[in-house]
Amino acid sequence: VTVHLVGAGPGDPGLITVRGLDLLRQADAVVYDELAAPELLDEVPADALQISRAGMRQPQIDELLVSLGRTFETVVRLKGGDPFLFGRGREEVDALAAAGVDYEVVPGVSALTAVPAAAGIPLTHRGLSAQVTVITARSAADDDLDFDSLAAAAGTLVIFMGVARLGELVEALVAAGKDPATPAAVVSSGTTDRELTVAGRLDEIGELAAGLPSPALTVIGPTAAFAATVTEPIYAAVTTRPS
Amino acid sequence: VTVHLVGAGPGDPGLITVRGLDLLRQADAVVYDELAAPELLDEVPADALQISRAGMRQPQIDELLVSLGRTFETVVRLKGGDPFLFGRGREEVDALAAAGVDYEVVPGVSALTAVPAAAGIPLTHRGLSAQVTVITARSAADDDLDFDSLAAAAGTLVIFMGVARLGELVEALVAAGKDPATPAAVVSSGTTDRELTVAGRLDEIGELAAGLPSPALTVIGPTAAFAATVTEPIYAAVTTRPS
Repeated sequence: VTVHLVGAGPGDPGLITVRGLDLLRQADAVVYDELAAPELLDEVPADALQISRAGMRQPQIDELLVSLGRTFETVVRLKGGDPFLFGRGREEVDALAAAGVDYEVVPGVSALTAVPAAAGIPLTHRGLSAQVTVITARSAADDDLDFDSLAAAAGTLVIFMGVARLGELVEALVAAGKDPATPAAVVSSGTTDRELTVAGRLDEIGELAAGLPSPALTVIGPTAAFAATVTEPIYAAVTTRPS
Repeated sequence: VTVHLVGAGPGDPGLITVRGLDLLRQADAVVYDELAAPELLDEVPADALQISRAGMRQPQIDELLVSLGRTFETVVRLKGGDPFLFGRGREEVDALAAAGVDYEVVPGVSALTAVPAAAGIPLTHRGLSAQVTVITARSAADDDLDFDSLAAAAGTLVIFMGVARLGELVEALVAAGKDPATPAAVVSSGTTDRELTVAGRLDEIGELAAGLPSPALTVIGPTAAFAATVTEPIYAAVTTRPS
């Protein structure tokens, strides 16, 4: 009996791992994030239990996983992106370990690299960026971000989620000394057929991105300028079922 | 005719994406990194051309991809990890675009999240880390790393490759004000059955990691302490062929 924490990937169902899909196809019970591609649930056996985590708080999810892990042979916790980067996966692991339930973590393709890539943006590029810094817009509220060190960091800054707070974050970065002319891009629903990208200067990106649907990811730094060189997504979303 | 830049994942062949494996199975020609799992090449049709990039410089790889892209129907450029994070993937894309050869980027699971995860280490964790900074040890030589801002950055610092240079990097971080008691871990060949992890304080990690085989990845920050809580890899390497 094992609970498998599986990264569903960034949006396109074809970007789940081979191991992750194998597990979904033999699952007795699946607890899924809303961000996971709905096509992936079609791969789960018809008689398996499928539970959305929508509306559940983290302690409830932890309890549910422990309970399912005690009852079923193969439980999959399907998480958007990668379980261990802004995924709270370790909290679920700790709950399972404390209850004596076996677990496994199956890493996934994170939006971190895949979503910018889909818009033509590499996080690193020779001569332009050799360093990446990653935060969430939510960090700004729950944790104390140090805007001085963020503004001073070389390379590429990636902000997960929170387009609504983007203007406020950008203002804080510029106030801390970040060049307002730094290239920036926001990619909404990257790797899916709903993908939308806007690009411009840092000091205009908040306005440009206003109203873009979630999930969205922001890239700030010299490589964000590559977004402007792409006229269509360079990763073509796979709309068929994974084979 | 399309050249597909495919991320092979962090080591375990089961961590390639479903889309990446599909492309390998229909490839007419494959140009592969040494870091890609050898089991993946078993999936390539027997009559396909298989070329190692070992010993080639980047401009030669670019020329080769353009040439293959003009001749074959399906060309796969199989890259370790993810093509757009320390993968020089955009350079290959630019060469193909300049030559008028169609291309596609298929993101992969980066060692960034998967290798720490395999050792039990989340990059972010509530109350411990809400920010991730990523560099390569090589950046220290080729680019000018700003150790003041690296030492001041909150959260988790991840260093790709370069265990040989780790002691030198750590010294520079501590000299710039990073707490020498910060937890640190080095994971060698993460997600494979050769995985080895060492963990300790920042000021002793260089010595602890001496001699660990490449590829290796270093994690510095509060979440690195999770490595000590794991007695065996929490991601079990899939040694069988992907199904």
